[in-house]
Amino acid sequence: MDKPLISRRLVDSDGSLAEVPKEAPKVGILGSGDFARSLATRLVGSGFSVVVGSRNPKRTAGLFPSLAQVTFQEEAVSSPEVIFVAVFREHYSSLCSLADQLTGKILVDVSNPTEKEHLQHCQSNAEYLASLFPACTVVKAFNVISAWALQAGPRDGNRQVLICGDQPEAKRTISEMARTMGFTPLDMGSLASAREVEAIPLRLLPSWKVPTLLALGLFVCFYAYNFIRDVLQPYVRKDENKFYKMPLSVVNTTLPCVAYVLLSLVYLPGVLAAALQLRRGTKYQRFPDWLDHWLQHRKQIGLLSFFFAMLHALYSFCLPLRRSHRYDLVNLAVKQVLANKSRLWVEEEVWRMEIYLSLGVLALGMLSLLAVTSLPSIANSLNWKEFSFVQSTLGFVALMLSTVHTLTYGWTRAFEENHYKFYLPPTFTLTLLLPCGIILAKGLFLLPCLSRRLAKIRRGWEKDGAVKFVLPGDHMQGERTSHV
Amino acid sequence: MDKPLISRRLVDSDGSLAEVPKEAPKVGILGSGDFARSLATRLVGSGFSVVVGSRNPKRTAGLFPSLAQVTFQEEAVSSPEVIFVAVFREHYSSLCSLADQLTGKILVDVSNPTEKEHLQHCQSNAEYLASLFPACTVVKAFNVISAWALQAGPRDGNRQVLICGDQPEAKRTISEMARTMGFTPLDMGSLASAREVEAIPLRLLPSWKVPTLLALGLFVCFYAYNFIRDVLQPYVRKDENKFYKMPLSVVNTTLPCVAYVLLSLVYLPGVLAAALQLRRGTKYQRFPDWLDHWLQHRKQIGLLSFFFAMLHALYSFCLPLRRSHRYDLVNLAVKQVLANKSRLWVEEEVWRMEIYLSLGVLALGMLSLLAVTSLPSIANSLNWKEFSFVQSTLGFVALMLSTVHTLTYGWTRAFEENHYKFYLPPTFTLTLLLPCGIILAKGLFLLPCLSRRLAKIRRGWEKDGAVKFVLPGDHMQGERTSHV
Amino acid sequence: MDKPLISRRLVDSDGSLAEVPKEAPKVGILGSGDFARSLATRLVGSGFSVVVGSRNPKRTAGLFPSLAQVTFQEEAVSSPEVIFVAVFREHYSSLCSLADQLTGKILVDVSNPTEKEHLQHCQSNAEYLASLFPACTVVKAFNVISAWALQAGPRDGNRQVLICGDQPEAKRTISEMARTMGFTPLDMGSLASAREVEAIPLRLLPSWKVPTLLALGLFVCFYAYNFIRDVLQPYVRKDENKFYKMPLSVVNTTLPCVAYVLLSLVYLPGVLAAALQLRRGTKYQRFPDWLDHWLQHRKQIGLLSFFFAMLHALYSFCLPLRRSHRYDLVNLAVKQVLANKSRLWVEEEVWRMEIYLSLGVLALGMLSLLAVTSLPSIANSLNWKEFSFVQSTLGFVALMLSTVHTLTYGWTRAFEENHYKFYLPPTFTLTLLLPCGIILAKGLFLLPCLSRRLAKIRRGWEKDGAVKFVLPGDHMQGERTSHV
Repeated sequence: MDKPLISRRLVDSDGSLAEVPKEAPKVGILGSGDFARSLATRLVGSGFSVVVGSRNPKRTAGLFPSLAQVTFQEEAVSSPEVIFVAVFREHYSSLCSLADQLTGKILVDVSNPTEKEHLQHCQSNAEYLASLFPACTVVKAFNVISAWALQAGPRDGNRQVLICGDQPEAKRTISEMARTMGFTPLDMGSLASAREVEAIPLRLLPSWKVPTLLALGLFVCFYAYNFIRDVLQPYVRKDENKFYKMPLSVVNTTLPCVAYVLLSLVYLPGVLAAALQLRRGTKYQRFPDWLDHWLQHRKQIGLLSFFFAMLHALYSFCLPLRRSHRYDLVNLAVKQVLANKSRLWVEEEVWRMEIYLSLGVLALGMLSLLAVTSLPSIANSLNWKEFSFVQSTLGFVALMLSTVHTLTYGWTRAFEENHYKFYLPPTFTLTLLLPCGIILAKGLFLLPCLSRRLAKIRRGWEKDGAVKFVLPGDHMQGERTSHV
Repeated sequence: MDKPLISRRLVDSDGSLAEVPKEAPKVGILGSGDFARSLATRLVGSGFSVVVGSRNPKRTAGLFPSLAQVTFQEEAVSSPEVIFVAVFREHYSSLCSLADQLTGKILVDVSNPTEKEHLQHCQSNAEYLASLFPACTVVKAFNVISAWALQAGPRDGNRQVLICGDQPEAKRTISEMARTMGFTPLDMGSLASAREVEAIPLRLLPSWKVPTLLALGLFVCFYAYNFIRDVLQPYVRKDENKFYKMPLSVVNTTLPCVAYVLLSLVYLPGVLAAALQLRRGTKYQRFPDWLDHWLQHRKQIGLLSFFFAMLHALYSFCLPLRRSHRYDLVNLAVKQVLANKSRLWVEEEVWRMEIYLSLGVLALGMLSLLAVTSLPSIANSLNWKEFSFVQSTLGFVALMLSTVHTLTYGWTRAFEENHYKFYLPPTFTLTLLLPCGIILAKGLFLLPCLSRRLAKIRRGWEKDGAVKFVLPGDHMQGERTSHV
Repeated sequence: MDKPLISRRLVDSDGSLAEVPKEAPKVGILGSGDFARSLATRLVGSGFSVVVGSRNPKRTAGLFPSLAQVTFQEEAVSSPEVIFVAVFREHYSSLCSLADQLTGKILVDVSNPTEKEHLQHCQSNAEYLASLFPACTVVKAFNVISAWALQAGPRDGNRQVLICGDQPEAKRTISEMARTMGFTPLDMGSLASAREVEAIPLRLLPSWKVPTLLALGLFVCFYAYNFIRDVLQPYVRKDENKFYKMPLSVVNTTLPCVAYVLLSLVYLPGVLAAALQLRRGTKYQRFPDWLDHWLQHRKQIGLLSFFFAMLHALYSFCLPLRRSHRYDLVNLAVKQVLANKSRLWVEEEVWRMEIYLSLGVLALGMLSLLAVTSLPSIANSLNWKEFSFVQSTLGFVALMLSTVHTLTYGWTRAFEENHYKFYLPPTFTLTLLLPCGIILAKGLFLLPCLSRRLAKIRRGWEKDGAVKFVLPGDHMQGERTSHV
């Protein structure tokens, strides 16, 4: 007989079709909350035969899909090999009476602790369950899936289900079930990882916290600086009321500073890492923690830079819509007429503006390419060379364009005394310091003596006497000097 | 002997490597159309041995990849366990002569009915095939994959293949094949689902139909209203020709109304659902159908709101590019000179505009974050808490910003008689009604008495005597008050 | 006993739990570079038991995760069935001493040649390895994954691992391992494909090369043309200095031309393919190579068109920000006053601008829908009908809107002599030629005689005597006349 396909063989290991179990595989569920019901719905929909264990089957039955069998707990756990435990941690101990029936079975812990519970117990829910039922195999799974995602079904098919447990076979069983239900299972290792897995649904964008605070901090500082220069100084010195500039003009002077400094902060850690490697003469040495974290948050910093640059563009396009712009124009025209001047034209100013605007648009266009490429579905379709070309090469071009944009905007103002208000230099001169330093350093690294040494180090070469100590997971980052 | 890996064990259940079948698994295909050929190409490319059954093998052979064996139907179906039926429904009966050879085999129905056929037959193609071949196992699969996607190969690797059938083992066989071919199989349940699965390729963005019609309807109504106020009234009352405003100005007054009303329609159903739960004292009761559908279409309504807001921004940026803007400015300047006024400045107008523009940009920036987060690849990488933070919290901030934007735009106009044209109030006053109501209701729900009761209900508490009846799949939506 | 789940059965083929191997599956690794270490880290994290073979185990041990066992090569390869070969090609031959221990095992070649090596050797690394170890089964895999992606773990879970090899069972083993490690395996066929698979990480956005060069070429040509008309001609003929227009105005006149021509180039190959099919009377005939490539690059050309259209919008919004715009306005006002004209208004100009701007925004909005729909994660969620509706129907609407936008921009200028500078016609007349031709052809294909014949051909009908010859993979593209 021809047995061409892997799965057929699976169910047919002794060669006779007669023994193939025709009935659907049986799964037990303990619990009757939202999650239990959504789970039952999805399991039934995926072809499993579901038995729900309840203390009060009559009352509970109406809540479950009609194809799920609802019965007493003792009965429900007797026949299936896999039991989902969908009850709160505080009720785990109430299941101890079922210990005998559960012996040798796989218990799937789907629970999620609240923030408070997670801080309170140092033992994960899953490990606690395992300690209560030493004769069972406990697998942690499905906790990262919401009841809603379980019900939504097919459309959320690419969602990952994180699975951990101490017994590989049990994990495989649950992985296969997750796959049948339309999820992508992911092995997270032993049950000791359960605490980490349980913490995942409690996270709130952890990788964005520091970069966002950084960006907001920069915004506040630059806003205050610009407010002093553009609003306070004219008021104090010349008694001019420029307070109307606060909602829009001052914001628009602040945004590009933040965007520009953030963009340079994307490239700074790469430069520092290279410098450190050059000095140490090896890449197999841990970076300091702060540098490590910085290297890992470049994507977020780059995206925030793009967001601020985008807002800067929108604010700039709003400038001619302002009433004050209209008034200024009309008043200028009236002044011209009264002064009997026939033609107003300053060639240098015209050139400055045209170049400056053009470069700004190009820099924004370049940054938008970087932003699009950092979308997960696009980043996943690029190979390393392509990703590094876009993020590293094009990103550096964007930094150069922004620098020239800023320089053209500043023109000669940095050298004119009347632009130093309260002795404060124009904002753009401050923002230029960091990026110019980075560009300089990148230039230095191109010198043959340094570039050759760096290339050797990155291929694995080590200076004699270089201290070699590496923790897994740390020695890679220096190599990936890409961003956004 | 060491048998470390699951798959090895699979092919090696009795422990001797000698018995592992070295030849590729065999698959049969009946049919010679585009789909059959693409299927053969992909199967051959994925390591299967393909036998194509044709009535005229000589004529057909040239159309298939050279590695596929093309022969007579009777011969083609004799040896493989899995036969793909890639012929039109009307030709199914012509295969009846093969019934004996097909006994016990898996027939995969890959057909897609046309719109007309789908309406005409109440029985799905797959069920019809199953009724013709009662001794075979029919599995519906691959119909959602186009011939093009089959050929495109690797690049479309994440595409889902929906599979349904009555025999779990057969489904698993086909799932495994789909996976080997680089697709993600998804079990859709029994063969009774085949009609639904066959309907999927006939769909045309069903979840967008109602929201799009709603948005267009709103656009038409608001456009007519604005046309009457901004163009018709000046023409009738003051004989002023403002018809030139129709292509741009009136559209730009209409777009923000539509965007703003749509955004509030995203948050309204959540408020209604909460009110209903509070009144009923339980969450385990079905919402009315209309509310249910509304809750499920919030994402689409939110994205349309963003699209209209985006267009509003683009139209606004076009305003100073208009020739009429230039003429108005020049005429204003000339008027100033003739009136011998030296300086034009209205402080209040200046402030109004600066605040209003700034808030508009911020609201758009916030909406763009929501839009980006609703991209499938990003939404899938967020946990429930993060998704809800972005869509619910940030989304509500965007609604608040839009409201203040609208209020600043309106300023005191709602209370000035000359802004009531034909007794019609300014458009912005109309659009404010709904969002202000929602913000008020959200504020009410924050009152301790209501917020505590709501929290209890959402944790599963029920008022005594609350009618408890729930259909699976309905009781979740109230909880997920998120959008976009 | 109840054996409900497929995976349980797998590990339990004889029915007794006692025999289930409790220990993790064993995997060997030869090599100690970055990739070997990252691989070891990931394998250990995914529950495998890892043995690393080194010539100097003492020196190497510190570099690997503590759970990985580091020993001499001979010892490391003796027990696992699967050995990862993570050494450079030039060291393959040094492994020959292990040939006896390796007999019958699976060797996984994870190597990536450098660009130079790839050009130098006509035999892939994997095939070379296979030739050295004829008694082993060589599988090529994981080379497309970077060491970084291996370590990043869970977050990169959707990444594809391309696998090829001559023995299906070995490929399945490695596929299953890849899946356990959180990757999506994809079968690429026999080991003969290894060269192709090894070339993938060397690629640099190959599908973008020709479209990008095309776009840049068009940009240079149109820029030169516009420079001659807008800057050089005034300088030569009227001695006017308009060189300040170079950075912004001329660029902004050039960008829409490029965007518009690119958009029409998206629809041209579909028209040519249809014409060819009509003439040949069959769809089963290869298109010429150039047409084939063109059809396959429509998405990239469309996205570049959108990028240039976007830049055009940004540049346009910058126009009123220019200093020259301000000067022109003021000078115009002064001129008006001096000429004693009280009101400036040209009704026709006003209408032209309003219509033209409005259409431009709509066309851009439409193109942005197309661009969003071509994101992989969204494109994958659409069925063929939806994808074709968006890309083909909405895309054609965008082309029509752009055409009317261009026509309104041009207005009557094409017929006025003073717009022919140096006898060169206005740029917009040039760009209109191609799109108008395409729209005309599309109109022609709607004629009953042609549309019926075309529909018949696309359903598979063939003219008598039509030469029938088709290579697999070529006959589909004509059908998919969609873009972006």
